[in-house]
Amino acid sequence: MDATRDIEALIGLMARLPGLGPRSARRAVLHLIKKRDTQLLPLAQLLADVGRTVRACLNCGNLSTGDICAICDSAKRQTGLICVVEDVADLWAMERAKVFHGRYHVLGGTLSPLDDVGPDDLHIPKLRDRIAAEGVTEVILALNATVEGQTTAHYVAQELAPTGVAISGLAQGVPIGGELDYLDDGTLRAALSARKAF
Amino acid sequence: MDATRDIEALIGLMARLPGLGPRSARRAVLHLIKKRDTQLLPLAQLLADVGRTVRACLNCGNLSTGDICAICDSAKRQTGLICVVEDVADLWAMERAKVFHGRYHVLGGTLSPLDDVGPDDLHIPKLRDRIAAEGVTEVILALNATVEGQTTAHYVAQELAPTGVAISGLAQGVPIGGELDYLDDGTLRAALSARKAF
Repeated sequence: MDATRDIEALIGLMARLPGLGPRSARRAVLHLIKKRDTQLLPLAQLLADVGRTVRACLNCGNLSTGDICAICDSAKRQTGLICVVEDVADLWAMERAKVFHGRYHVLGGTLSPLDDVGPDDLHIPKLRDRIAAEGVTEVILALNATVEGQTTAHYVAQELAPTGVAISGLAQGVPIGGELDYLDDGTLRAALSARKAF
Repeated sequence: MDATRDIEALIGLMARLPGLGPRSARRAVLHLIKKRDTQLLPLAQLLADVGRTVRACLNCGNLSTGDICAICDSAKRQTGLICVVEDVADLWAMERAKVFHGRYHVLGGTLSPLDDVGPDDLHIPKLRDRIAAEGVTEVILALNATVEGQTTAHYVAQELAPTGVAISGLAQGVPIGGELDYLDDGTLRAALSARKAF
């Protein structure tokens, strides 16, 4: 069954995507084959294009088609302010929210001894270089509010201390629309201890 | 943001796959970009290959790289027995179970007036031709046990009646491992009325 060999291989690759298992990969592949001209071929083309052109920005680690990404390259972004994120997905989340107008620095992960991710695997030296080179006055650590994220935040803060730059972190508390009854104890404790005058 | 344009387009296409939404499409695309050489490029290549080579078997509607699929072409498959399925996914399910050794006929859908699918959209004339051409003695209607599936089964049975071929349908009842407490009324009714001597 020669048709099946390629299709099986395709299903195998699709099943390795996060959020897809063997069953949904099969459905997705059949869907693509049925929509050959409108979906399968455009998808193949776009994947090839992205694979050929997209790489990491040499400055911040964001995805880019050139050496320097559009955000680092933009004259419209506020200078002197760097938001440190773990991953490009987090950078996208910040951009979607349209609340930050400075530049980013993608660490490329969090410290995780169990996964064998140490300080050398994160892009911290480059961040230190940028603080001097770009005249940065504040670094915002926008890392996930998880144990790994916060451990990494502390480590980065320590590493940046000698530069004298102001370092801040995202506020923790009750999310907008959050109902107290559904919040975990940690969030309630953080929200209470960081309470503000009304 | 030129990198973002292609990536956004890619996320848009991925999000149209069944089982993926915008969020999981974003995750999948980032995952692929990170695994450029081991996953993204092979996926692009395989999609292009499948898009170029895979088409419907002229005989049964199964996926194939040639005019006639491997199952129709195989001398090992039992002749005279055709299993009618709605979709290639159902054909795959039967093949995975390794319980059927005849040939298939893919209808390409079920009758669904609301979705504007009428008898002319199903591959019934070809099925009628095959019954004569292949000396078929039995047609098994392996359609889904849904209203659409069963309506279609009745329609197909009616259409095939003049050929005099034996027509059967899959048995309905309690699935293996099924617990009565979790079964719907319809299944219990079908299982009871089709009860067998013990």
